[in-house]
Formats: sequence, structure tokens, C-alpha cells
Amino acid sequence: MSSQNSKVLLVYSGGLDTSICIPLMRQEYGYKDVVTVTVDVGQPQSDIEQAAEKAKLLGTEHYTVDAKEEFAKDFCFASLQANGDYQGYPMSTSIARPLIAAKAVEMAQRLGITSFAHGCTGKGNDQYRIEFGIRSLMSHATIHAPVRERNMTRSWEIEYAQKNNVPIQQSLEKIWSIDENLWGRSIEGGRLEEPDFAPPEEIFQWTQSVEKAPNAATEMSIQFKKGIPVSLNGETLSAAALVIKLNKIAGDHGIGRIDIMEDRMMGLKVRENYECPGSVVLLKAHQALENLVLTRDEIRFKKTVDLEWSKLAYEGLWWDPFKTDLECFIQKTQERVTGHVKLKLFKGQTTVLGRSSDWALYSEDLASFDSTTFDQRESTGSVKNFGMQPRMFQHLAEKFKTQM
Amino acid sequence: MSSQNSKVLLVYSGGLDTSICIPLMRQEYGYKDVVTVTVDVGQPQSDIEQAAEKAKLLGTEHYTVDAKEEFAKDFCFASLQANGDYQGYPMSTSIARPLIAAKAVEMAQRLGITSFAHGCTGKGNDQYRIEFGIRSLMSHATIHAPVRERNMTRSWEIEYAQKNNVPIQQSLEKIWSIDENLWGRSIEGGRLEEPDFAPPEEIFQWTQSVEKAPNAATEMSIQFKKGIPVSLNGETLSAAALVIKLNKIAGDHGIGRIDIMEDRMMGLKVRENYECPGSVVLLKAHQALENLVLTRDEIRFKKTVDLEWSKLAYEGLWWDPFKTDLECFIQKTQERVTGHVKLKLFKGQTTVLGRSSDWALYSEDLASFDSTTFDQRESTGSVKNFGMQPRMFQHLAEKFKTQM
Amino acid sequence: MSSQNSKVLLVYSGGLDTSICIPLMRQEYGYKDVVTVTVDVGQPQSDIEQAAEKAKLLGTEHYTVDAKEEFAKDFCFASLQANGDYQGYPMSTSIARPLIAAKAVEMAQRLGITSFAHGCTGKGNDQYRIEFGIRSLMSHATIHAPVRERNMTRSWEIEYAQKNNVPIQQSLEKIWSIDENLWGRSIEGGRLEEPDFAPPEEIFQWTQSVEKAPNAATEMSIQFKKGIPVSLNGETLSAAALVIKLNKIAGDHGIGRIDIMEDRMMGLKVRENYECPGSVVLLKAHQALENLVLTRDEIRFKKTVDLEWSKLAYEGLWWDPFKTDLECFIQKTQERVTGHVKLKLFKGQTTVLGRSSDWALYSEDLASFDSTTFDQRESTGSVKNFGMQPRMFQHLAEKFKTQM
Amino acid sequence: MSSQNSKVLLVYSGGLDTSICIPLMRQEYGYKDVVTVTVDVGQPQSDIEQAAEKAKLLGTEHYTVDAKEEFAKDFCFASLQANGDYQGYPMSTSIARPLIAAKAVEMAQRLGITSFAHGCTGKGNDQYRIEFGIRSLMSHATIHAPVRERNMTRSWEIEYAQKNNVPIQQSLEKIWSIDENLWGRSIEGGRLEEPDFAPPEEIFQWTQSVEKAPNAATEMSIQFKKGIPVSLNGETLSAAALVIKLNKIAGDHGIGRIDIMEDRMMGLKVRENYECPGSVVLLKAHQALENLVLTRDEIRFKKTVDLEWSKLAYEGLWWDPFKTDLECFIQKTQERVTGHVKLKLFKGQTTVLGRSSDWALYSEDLASFDSTTFDQRESTGSVKNFGMQPRMFQHLAEKFKTQM
Repeated sequence: MSSQNSKVLLVYSGGLDTSICIPLMRQEYGYKDVVTVTVDVGQPQSDIEQAAEKAKLLGTEHYTVDAKEEFAKDFCFASLQANGDYQGYPMSTSIARPLIAAKAVEMAQRLGITSFAHGCTGKGNDQYRIEFGIRSLMSHATIHAPVRERNMTRSWEIEYAQKNNVPIQQSLEKIWSIDENLWGRSIEGGRLEEPDFAPPEEIFQWTQSVEKAPNAATEMSIQFKKGIPVSLNGETLSAAALVIKLNKIAGDHGIGRIDIMEDRMMGLKVRENYECPGSVVLLKAHQALENLVLTRDEIRFKKTVDLEWSKLAYEGLWWDPFKTDLECFIQKTQERVTGHVKLKLFKGQTTVLGRSSDWALYSEDLASFDSTTFDQRESTGSVKNFGMQPRMFQHLAEKFKTQM
Repeated sequence: MSSQNSKVLLVYSGGLDTSICIPLMRQEYGYKDVVTVTVDVGQPQSDIEQAAEKAKLLGTEHYTVDAKEEFAKDFCFASLQANGDYQGYPMSTSIARPLIAAKAVEMAQRLGITSFAHGCTGKGNDQYRIEFGIRSLMSHATIHAPVRERNMTRSWEIEYAQKNNVPIQQSLEKIWSIDENLWGRSIEGGRLEEPDFAPPEEIFQWTQSVEKAPNAATEMSIQFKKGIPVSLNGETLSAAALVIKLNKIAGDHGIGRIDIMEDRMMGLKVRENYECPGSVVLLKAHQALENLVLTRDEIRFKKTVDLEWSKLAYEGLWWDPFKTDLECFIQKTQERVTGHVKLKLFKGQTTVLGRSSDWALYSEDLASFDSTTFDQRESTGSVKNFGMQPRMFQHLAEKFKTQM
Repeated sequence: MSSQNSKVLLVYSGGLDTSICIPLMRQEYGYKDVVTVTVDVGQPQSDIEQAAEKAKLLGTEHYTVDAKEEFAKDFCFASLQANGDYQGYPMSTSIARPLIAAKAVEMAQRLGITSFAHGCTGKGNDQYRIEFGIRSLMSHATIHAPVRERNMTRSWEIEYAQKNNVPIQQSLEKIWSIDENLWGRSIEGGRLEEPDFAPPEEIFQWTQSVEKAPNAATEMSIQFKKGIPVSLNGETLSAAALVIKLNKIAGDHGIGRIDIMEDRMMGLKVRENYECPGSVVLLKAHQALENLVLTRDEIRFKKTVDLEWSKLAYEGLWWDPFKTDLECFIQKTQERVTGHVKLKLFKGQTTVLGRSSDWALYSEDLASFDSTTFDQRESTGSVKNFGMQPRMFQHLAEKFKTQM
Repeated sequence: MSSQNSKVLLVYSGGLDTSICIPLMRQEYGYKDVVTVTVDVGQPQSDIEQAAEKAKLLGTEHYTVDAKEEFAKDFCFASLQANGDYQGYPMSTSIARPLIAAKAVEMAQRLGITSFAHGCTGKGNDQYRIEFGIRSLMSHATIHAPVRERNMTRSWEIEYAQKNNVPIQQSLEKIWSIDENLWGRSIEGGRLEEPDFAPPEEIFQWTQSVEKAPNAATEMSIQFKKGIPVSLNGETLSAAALVIKLNKIAGDHGIGRIDIMEDRMMGLKVRENYECPGSVVLLKAHQALENLVLTRDEIRFKKTVDLEWSKLAYEGLWWDPFKTDLECFIQKTQERVTGHVKLKLFKGQTTVLGRSSDWALYSEDLASFDSTTFDQRESTGSVKNFGMQPRMFQHLAEKFKTQM
């Protein structure tokens, strides 16, 4: 092992899975030094601090990378422009994975490291997303996935942690498996996976229940430029700041709870619970504006493009050339998605009150442009001709029926 | 004109447009007798009675056809199985038009009539739907569309009505143009067409505002058999009865207000307001059950099939052989859409609490069937191989970048 | 009528339909001056000369616009990049129409004219294409379509021509209706429209019959840059020159006869015969190269994009923003469609002998990159997991069958 | 190991890969008895006999199952109805795999066996197809894939064969890897995988070169009933007989050579050569008939359905419920695909000379039904209205350009 290869970069969250990787990398994988990197995409500050503390305790060279603004701008808003959605889920966890991989590779390149480790299991989606990201950006990287490679169980992990002085108190107390970033929060585990189990109120932290949501509505206006939200009620905000602010406002109104059956990449169908207040509001506003400025055929076909984009994003295929092709289509449509959307947030619901844009394919001007010159009689031929082939078919069907 | 052709069948609603057609058919189109038919698809009883009274007053041979059960069963629920939706609208008005045409043709056949008249304008969608329906079912029908053919304006219609003793008091008082049936209520006209005008509370009659909706939620269970709702909270109900009941319950909870930009068939983009409490609840429940029992690829592709079906339904192409083809696909998927969905209706929102089905592709049984035999190590190859082509591309892109 | 409006610009081919428009515009439409424009998109030089002569004879201000290079570069090759095809037809006539409209508008703007006339009938596709083009580029243009507006028949046209000294000898001799440009030749009319009538040899002028095609094959190499053919057997050629040369070579080998059922825009299904030697060869070569450099998902989805593009092109919607959106997708994919395709032209067939590109997703290099590191055992899990959901379904289906 | 488990059923072709599995199953996998099954789907009779001889020599209980008729009827013709094609390939090898798996399971059930072995490598598509088939039809089957599981190389296999007296003379002489059945023949291996290597004439056995093809054309008529070819030149033939006969006739005319880049399931892009004379002719004839009887929208959308079906068929997902859903759509369309297609086979090409059907959406009758009542003036409104939204867009774009 060359000196460069004596170091491994561990994508580190501070949880049980990734924490046991630290002693494992040294004892079982033969690395002298473990470098840990935590990428801040909007998870709770306490999680990030805890990760740093644990890393210190376990003696790694630790880095925290603040990627919130980049995440909001280049990942969340790219997803927004594509009305990013997989089976009802705004793909919050999914779209953070490529960025985490990219930041890990960036750090590795800076430190001259080519070996990586992550804590993903062999059952989930994240192993695909993280490894594809790393391999796309550093084609000859060596990647270790100890949890998968050793077919670990939770009890084995706990035992190993205890033997190796890895602090796991919090992991033991955790009932649910949580993932958080600016675009949303996912809650998994235990009975939550069952399709017929009503999720308990306790799992929600970002969103108020509708019952406890305030009795007064909040009205707001979001300004979009080329499909990107740039200001809230007239106040220009950075991408991350805008999302954070909306998460708070919409969450307080009980907006953004999502409860769906989701087909994971390997084919398992699982119930999933999410809290996505900000993204749910933005997606609704964005689509309302699109429906004002795009033609009927653009709206129709963009649905298909958006679905393809979303599948790639769900699977973490961020650097697929096909994704870039789709984005060229999407970007072109977004050039006109500029304008204002007025919303009412109330009791778990986002209502669009109005939308306006210079690119509206509706305007009194245009309406009159057509209606003054519009003579109803001119429709006659088009109505008469409408559905000619289906009517020919009916004609034949009738004829053959009679013959029999 | 043969004796048979001295009669014309007028599709009659009792409104201004169709009422003036009665004297017009006699005076301008040369028909001796006008037969009026009102098809009851769930519009207010008072509207139906009024139509009958006016018809009597204007001296037509009048028929009211109760098609509510047929409408619910064969039109609303067919649409439900297809998750019928056009740009956010459950297509309530659209899917009633073919049935109205069919009932008119049925009546005409019974009475030996081959001439039809309707009151649709030359700007809207209904002319296409109604005429396609009639022509499909009676290929050599003669169809008159006086409002379109004479390029009538509202003021001309009023004047003509007054000259001909057509009662129009109610038409004069009406501010909005309303269409109602079991599957929903549409409200159009005036400033409501503007994209940036917040609709006034007064336009809503089926749905309570969220503000005034009760503070206690209603939980319910809907049972589906092959994609069709058959009972509510264990009580078996006819199709029409079930929809009527749900409209009431959901409307009281403020559910079903829809406010969208809609692209009409001729290309005009207009803001539309709908109240669809029952259909909104059923569509949500139906889709939740589908997502439990269908495979990922069935879910993905059925979206495309549903969109195609919806476009045909929106355009009134009910007897298009393509629609039948699509329905063969849909019906096959629905064979498994059997089970229960638990819902919570509260403050304008429908929340799915749980879903269960014998055909669930999730079950503890199946989950364990896979997880006991699942060795995480087996994922290694599939993860390593994942995204091979995009990675080859990155490899090449990197190489060419370096060369330049 | 203002002085500017005393002139009308007639899109002129020299045929019967457009020739009678000259006296008609003066006598019936009240124009003082008729300006005729013939756009050269590759029709026979004799047609163009004849049009000029007739125009002179009929006293119009006449212009011939050579648009061959623009047509080849911006219309034919745009179509090539989209594998442009409608139901088996490379859309030669279709894609010429927008350019003809554009050149007419350009000329009108230069001359200060806002009134247009064309000779399209009310049954065909061209009326839609030409009028959409003119209206898109000059929104307040006045457009006259005399043949349609007066519901003309051929015999009426002949009579009118004779009365007005319009030379029609050639029109009288013509049996078939021909349209020609660089991208192909269409032959219509009479029994050719019948689906079960074998087209006679005499209708073909660009292509040799396979029977008479030479017994020696021609091999050639076409070089593409970003989806555009730039050289033939190493010789760099302008767009038009390349297409003209290929039409000759491929036509001599009997390549490019197309005989299909085609659904016209208004719904009529008609048999169509085309000769498209050059475009058929280029489309085959282009697709072979795409299949070498694009990923599987790009190939799959580009089919859908190409179909949408082709529908727009067939309908003449050249200036639809949706078309631009699609082209952004297409252009991005074409960045890699650079390389060489070796072909063999022989006895009516084009055979791809080989293809090469720096962007090939195949190369010994890449193959070994994967195969040296490829351990077959790694496939085990992915094979075992394959089709999990369909297998769950079979499991359930089996269970329920047993129970019954 | 229970007595039932002491037997393993080997899917047997007689080639090197499967032949070495016989001693391997005994020596390394601990099976007492090896049962070999060869499924006849149209491969050369000599291959089938050889397999039986080798099996005898190696002491297995051997079965040959003649599945030709079933293959032609239920697999080839199902594919024909779906215009089955993957990237230019009629999927001959692909669609045989599920049937081979089904026949193996059938035999296993008869003999009370639950263990299977096959000779597929860990790199190809067949492992997915065969194992999915077996697992779908016998969910708890044990499946061995020795070549994959032991990461075998050809040289290891040869050595092992020699040690164990497995006759391999023919395998040693084979340069190419061949797969044959009624629907086509594939030739792989060596330089044939390179995209830029012109395949040598020697690899073709079913098809004459165009150079040597007869100088006289063969004309023929194929009769279809519901999308299925039932007679050739008036002679009713069984499914297998018809395909065999067509393979001969079309192959003699040099028809059916296919040379494409193909994306394998695991992502490898490889050049492939096929000979598919019969299927190429049938696919062309079938599509010609479809284009006569289906509506424009049916033709358009069936393309999408066919592509989805083909992907499933290529991947061997024969028992996927999604495939059944798609087939319901397809079957419905095929009800009208009844009629005759006249063809000319000549010098490598299939030309459609004519097509006829009672369900033709073209007929003089129908044409006149529309044209006698067709007044060209009626098109005016529809042309004027055409492309309204794109024109609104152009209007706005122009306005903003001027302002800047």
C-alpha cells in the first residue's frame, strides 16, 4: 500500500453505521489514517457538531463542509425546475447524495486520497447514489462499503461499537431512522414501513399538525426568475435562506406531510413518511406559474421529461449525460417561468390565489386579439371534422354488426 | 322534408342558450315539432324541474332522463380507474357530455328522429364533445348548433328571447356560468377567467371554506373492488349514492376546491374554478390503493396511459377505439385494485391513513421472504455495475478535457 | 385600401392552382399589383424557370429566391438530427413549407407588403403549414387562400384559366401531383391513393428500380460533426451539395422508394409514394452513429423526443416554442454524434458496414476497463433480485389460485 | 439432502458451457442424478441430436421437448403483434428463453425436481431471462449457475472437460458463438463485437448475400387474422410451418441480415449480427396492415406500448403482470388487424405492394362519404385557429425583443 493509499476518506454522519467504520477501517481494512467528512446540506446543527465531536474522540482528521447554499441552488432548485417528484416524494434525501459524494471527492482530491468508505447498507438506495457519484467524479476510486460487505446486523454493530469505544448512546435511543436536509425530512423504521399503520404524531418535527396549526392564514407572494424563486414577499433571499424561511412558515401551518408507498430501487415497496414544507409550497407555486406561460404541448410533454429527470435524480444518476440532455429541454422552458405567484398557507394547505407573468399565454390583450376577430361560425368545419377516424371506425363496426 | 324530419330533438338544459333554440328551430330552421330532452346527471333538482316547466310553457314534447346511476357507474368510475385528470381537473363536465349525447340519440331512435340541436357556442369544448357523441352513435344525424351558426351574442339572445316570450329572468340574474353533475361543479365567467384574480367566496356552493369547516375530522374507510368504490364505512352503496354521500361529507370539510389554468381544446388558456369534493377524495384513495398493489413499472406506465385516456375524455372522444384499447390496459391493472383505504377528511384535506389489499406487493410475509434470504453482499456487483454507460461517458469527457 | 395594401404577395409555384390566383387577386380580391415569389428548395430548374416565364406573361413583379443551402442546412439537417420521420416518411414536403413561408414574409417585409395569397386547397396539410408560418412571422398578415375560400374544383380552375389566358398546357398533361425538393420527391393523385394498388414504375424519376440498379455496389464513408454530415468519402461539401450528390448516387442504386399509408392532418388516411434517396441514406447513417455514442436511456428517450419533433415538423409548426425546447435536448445529444459511418449502397439497400467515433461508448479500452475487473460472481445478487415485484405478483396469484 | 433434492435438472444445449455442468453437478454440487432437458425451438436438428448423444455418453436422464409450434404461436407471434423490436433486433434469442425455462419447470414438476442448473455466464442477458422464468414459475426453486458462480474462463472449461471426458471437439472448432431458433439466428464473438469491423460473409448461413440472391423477385400474399399470419399465398399453415417456410424463401432472397449496436442488460454496448429473414418479412407486413386499420392515435401510442413490451421481452420478463396489461391493449388493437398484404421479396428487400382489410380506415366508400360532403371553406376556421398558443408566444417574444 503506497503512502497515498494509507488514507481512506469516510463519508461521515456521526451515526452508528458510519461511526463503527472508523475503527473498522483501521483494524480490518488496514488503513493507517481515517479522514472523516461531514457535508452540511441542512441537517440539524447538533448532528453536525456531534459528528465533529465523535470524530475527534475517535481520532480522525475531520472536516465539515458547508454546502447548504450550493445544495439549495444547484440541487433543490434544479429539482424544482423539473417539478422533481418520485411517486409523490420531492426526493429530498436522494438529491443530497450526489452533492455529498461530490464534496467527498473534492476533499479527497485536495488531500491526495483515492480510497473511500461509506456506511450505506446493501439493501437501500444510498449505496447506488453515493458510489455512482464517487465513481463518476473519480473513475478509479476504491470504495469500501463495510456494512454491506460484511453483511452487518444492528446487534453486531452495537457489540462492535462497544468493544471499540465508539459512543452510541444516542443511536441506542433512536427509534426511527431520520434523514434531514433543506429539501425535506424523512422518517423511517419499524412499523412505519407497514402500509396500514397510521403514523404517530411524534415522528413529525418540522410540521405542526393541522389541528394545532394557527387559525389565521398566511398569504405570501413568491417571485420566480427563470423557474427559480428569488424573493419572498418582495424580500430577495439567497437560495438556502429562502428555503429555510419557507420550511419554517409552511411547517407552522402544517404543510408538507407526505405519506406514500414507495418503490425502492431494488424493488422493495415500502411505506414512507416525509416532511417537506418548503419544497411542497415551492413545487405548487412553480407549477402554477408554468401552467400560465407554457403551451399546452409543452405542459403535456414536460410531464414526461420531468418524470424521466426525477427517476434519474431518485437513483442518484446526477452525472448521467441523459440528465444533462433533459435539463437542456427544461432550461429552455424555464426561460419564461418568470413572474409572481400569490399563495395562501392555511391548515395544512397551500392555495394558489393568483399568478402573473409577462410571458402569460393569457392576457386581456391576447384574449381580445382573438375574440374580436373570432366568428363562431368558423368553428363549424373543425367540429364537423373532429374525430373523423374514430367515427369511420364506428361506421365500420356498425356495418359488420348488422351483417352478422 | 319528410314527416320524420319535421321533428328536431333539442338537448335541453333550460338555460338561455338552449331555451331560445326552441322558437328558433320552428321559425328559422323550419321544424314543426321540437322535442326537448334533459338528461339528469346530478345537476340540482330545481334546474331539472325548471327545464321541464319552461319546456311546457314553450310547448315542446319534453323528456327528463334520469342517468345518474349510469353516469356514476360507467362514466365517473371509468374515469376514476384511469385517475382521470386534465391539468388538475377531474373532468366532471367533460365526461357528462358523451352520456348526454348518448341519451339524446337513444331518445331520437325511439322517436324516429334524426335531427338534433344543441346550444353550445362556437368557442367552447362542448360543441366538439356533443357532436362527436351524436355522430358516433348515429352517423347520418343532422346537427344544428344555432348559437354557433348564427354567431349569437348574449344581448342578441336576450332580445330574441324577450320577443319570443322565452322566460329568462333567472338567466339575467346569473352572474356566473355554472355546470353541475355528480362528479363536480364548475364556475366560470367574468373576472374568474383572469389568472391573477382571487375567486370570491360566493362562487362556492358545494364546499365549505376551510375557515368554516368543522374542527373535528371525519375518518372513513372506502372499500374498492377492481378499482371501483363499493362501500363507505362498511355500508354498500350504489355508485350514484356513494358519490352523492361523499360530495356532502367532503364538501362540508372544505375539500375539493380546484383553481387552475386550463388549456381549452381550441387553444385558449383560461383560469377555471371547480368544486369536486367527492371525486377528489375518491381519486386520492384510488391512487393510494394502486400504489400498494401495482408494480413500479405498472405505476410508471399507467401514468402515461391515464394521461392519454384523460385527453380523450376531456375532448369527449368517448367512442374512440383508442379509448377502448387504453381501457383494456386499465381494466387489467384494476383486477388487483381491491382492498380498503382509510382516510381522514379535515380542513380541506384528505389524508390517507392506511391501505390494505390481498394483492399488496408489500406484506410482512413477502418482506421476510426476501429479507431472510437477503445477504447484503449480493448487492455489491449490482452497485459496482450501476450507471456503467454514464460513467464511460464521464471517462471520455474527462479524457477529452485533458487533451484540450 | 391603403397603397401598401394594394399589393399582394403570392407564394408561386407556376402550377395551375397558383397561376389562376394571379388574375383572381386582381379581379376578385381587388389587388392592383400581384408580386409572385418562387422559393427554390431544390425543385427541378425547369419548374423554376417556367414559373418565372408564366409570371412574366401574367404581368407580376416576380422574384426567385434561392434557398437551397439554407433549406439543406437549417431544415433538412435539423430534421436529420431528430431522425425526422412521420409514419415512415422523412417529411420532405413538410419541412420545406415553413421556409417558403419565411422567405415570403422576408420578401413582403422588404417590399412593405402585408397581404399574402397561396394556392393550397382546403383539404390538405399545406394550408396549415404555410399560414402558420406566415402568421408566426408577421402576426397581423392578411392571408388569402382562394382555392379553399371559393371551394374550387379542378374543372372550374381550368375553365377560369382558359378564360384568363393563363397557360395551363403542362397542368393538363400532368397525371400525378408532384412535389420536389432536396429532401425528397412525392408523387400523389389518382389511383396512387388506394392502399391496394401497386404503384407503376413510371411515377419514379429519382430512383432506379432495383431490377435496373447496377450490379456493383458503391461503398462510401460519411463523416458527421455534431449530427451533421460534413463530408463524403473525405470530400468536404456544403449541405446542399452533399444532399444533391447523395440523391444521385443513392437514387442510381434504387435506394429511397417509400410506399406507406399516411394519416394526414385532418384525419384522412391516404397511401403515399415518395422517393427520398439521400435522406434515407443519411437517416440510416446518422442513427447508426447515434447508437454507438449515446447511452441506452438516451437512445430510448430520444425516440420519444424525435417523434414529438417530427409531429411538429409534419404539421409545419416550425416556430413553436415546444419545438425549440425539444431541439435543446436534441442538440445536447448531438454534441457527441461525431465520427465516421461506412456504408454500402446496393440494389435498393443501404448497409452500415462500420461506425467509429471518439465518443463511442464501446472501445477495446473501455471493454477491458470493465472486463479485467469483472468477476462474474458479482452478478449473482443482481440476477437473484431481478424482477422481484413481478415474482411477488406470481407468488400471490399462485396463492389465490390454490385457495379457489 | 432429501431424495427429491438429489436430482438436478440441467437446461442443456450440448455446448461446452452446459456439457461441463454434467460432471460438475455431480462432483462439485453433490447431486446424484443429473437430468438434462433440451428444448427444441427451431435450432438445427443436428444440434438437438448431438445434445442427446452427449447426454447419453455422459450418463444423464435426457429429454428433448419439441416446443416449435408453441414457440411460433405464443412467443414469436405475440412478439409480432407487438412489432417486437429492441434497437433494431427482433429479439429472437430473447423470447426463446422464457419458453425454455417454462419447459424446464414443467419437466421438473413432472419429475418432482426443484433444483436447476444452467450454463449462462455472469456477463450476459440469458442468466436474467432463464432465472426469472424459473423463479416465476416455481418460486422456491434452487438455481445453480456454475459458469458464473465459479467465474469460469473458456480455457478452464476446456481443461475441465478434457479431464472429465466431456467431448468438446466441435466446441474447439467453433469460432463464433451461434444461437438459432425459428425467429432468427445470432452470430457473436471475436472481432464481430467491434463496431467498425465489417462482418465476413462466412458468418451467414440462413441468408444469401444480395450479390448471389436470384435475379427474379418472388411476390407473395400473407393473410393475417387478428394480427396473426395464417396463410401464405392462400395456403393455410401452422405457425411453425409458416415461419420455417418464410425463413427459407426470404433467406434465399438475401432478406433479414441485421447489423446493429446493441445495449445489453448490464450496460455493455456490443455490435451484434443477426439473420432473421422470416421475422423481418412478417414484421414489415404486419405493420403495413396496422397502418391501414388503426387510427392515427392508435398508431402513435402503440409505438410506445410496443417499445415497453419489447423491453420486457428483451429482458425475459415474460411473466410480469405489466406485460399482461400491455398485451390487453395490444390484443384489442389486433382485433382489426385482419386482411391481406401483398409483398415483393427481391435482392435483400421486402416491398409492400398493397394491403387490404375490411377494417381499413380507407375505402372509396369512406373517402366519398367525406369528400362529397366536404366543403373546403369549412377548413378556414381551423386553419386560422391552428397553432394559436405558439403564435401568442411569437407575439410576446416579438414585443419583448422590440422593448429591449
